[in-house]
Amino acid sequence: MTKPILYTCAGSRGLRATWAAEEAGAEIDLRILPFPPRYLAPEYLALNPLGTVPLLIDGEDRLTESCAIAHYLATRAGPSLLAIAPGEADYAAYLDYTYHADATITFPQTVYMRFCLFEKDKGLQEAGQAYAKWFHKRLVKIEQRLATREFLCADRFTVADICIGYALILAASVGLDEGVPGSLKAYRERLTARPAYQRAVAREEAGRKALADEPREG
Amino acid sequence: MTKPILYTCAGSRGLRATWAAEEAGAEIDLRILPFPPRYLAPEYLALNPLGTVPLLIDGEDRLTESCAIAHYLATRAGPSLLAIAPGEADYAAYLDYTYHADATITFPQTVYMRFCLFEKDKGLQEAGQAYAKWFHKRLVKIEQRLATREFLCADRFTVADICIGYALILAASVGLDEGVPGSLKAYRERLTARPAYQRAVAREEAGRKALADEPREG
Repeated sequence: MTKPILYTCAGSRGLRATWAAEEAGAEIDLRILPFPPRYLAPEYLALNPLGTVPLLIDGEDRLTESCAIAHYLATRAGPSLLAIAPGEADYAAYLDYTYHADATITFPQTVYMRFCLFEKDKGLQEAGQAYAKWFHKRLVKIEQRLATREFLCADRFTVADICIGYALILAASVGLDEGVPGSLKAYRERLTARPAYQRAVAREEAGRKALADEPREG
Repeated sequence: MTKPILYTCAGSRGLRATWAAEEAGAEIDLRILPFPPRYLAPEYLALNPLGTVPLLIDGEDRLTESCAIAHYLATRAGPSLLAIAPGEADYAAYLDYTYHADATITFPQTVYMRFCLFEKDKGLQEAGQAYAKWFHKRLVKIEQRLATREFLCADRFTVADICIGYALILAASVGLDEGVPGSLKAYRERLTARPAYQRAVAREEAGRKALADEPREG
């Protein structure tokens, strides 16, 4: 198997992919882009016309969804404890939580970030705050699930924890942590204490620093 | 196997699940709720504290993500042509497009619907319009993919087409069709001409009508 290339920005949703690669022991060629790449690395648009990160290139395959990439890296070399296979207990929950991470939990945070952080001069903070509230209310499903469990599925750490965990990590970094229940903060601490998580963050950070040190054409 | 129970509202994202069940020949017990269930069927909150639809109950398993449910119904009884298994060509693309459907394509439509349709008295139409534009720009990936293909993956109809197809069906029903490329409208026509799609719509509509005819307590 050739080594897949992962393009991402340090600390973005692509962290799900970098983290999954570390947990899976999958070798990847990690390429950190400046943020936002559509303005600071416009040549990237030829690889990914969406201009979004992450992008995984694996031979002829190109994936742009962070949860799909994490799920894929955990299963591309065959069955793995990081994923749950059809027929195994909690297969349904595994699918449900990996999809849930972006479709229900991360997206409202991005609407909040747009109108309350990045574009706050537009006077649309009320729209952003409506989605901050939406985000906090939607945490109930994860909170109930984890009330009696250490991890989301099958009593072990899986990609579902990576995908949901990243959403909780994002909340802390964008000022949405006040409405996050203590039990989910404790879960996040268990996740971020993992050596593979810390290696992933360090790899992304080293890439970001190399980029900042690199002379750029004006 | 016991028959899974699918709770949904007619024409909602749950149509992905009803449609996948028809394509898979999977028997389900379809239960149509009034919209929005959190106000018109508050007893539903005991089953799904998020108050969202769809909800699939399969024995001990409960799924609330429409793309996860479609993916699950196609694989719960074993490998199926409706899904793509690890190791098969286009497995990566299959995962990527099924996640893409909600995480990138449907969510901006829901922000538009909120501020430009359901809550337009709030004066936040500009926020809704920003996400309408976002939706149209993000169609480029699907458009390029389908320029040389009839279906998204592996030269056959799969759950990836159900998940992405629903997003295009939604666009037509909420007034976002003007910015949808003609090639994607033609793709949507191919999908909605499928007998299984038409059976799914008819089943949901029959459930909705039975509900409307039912006397309700005031």
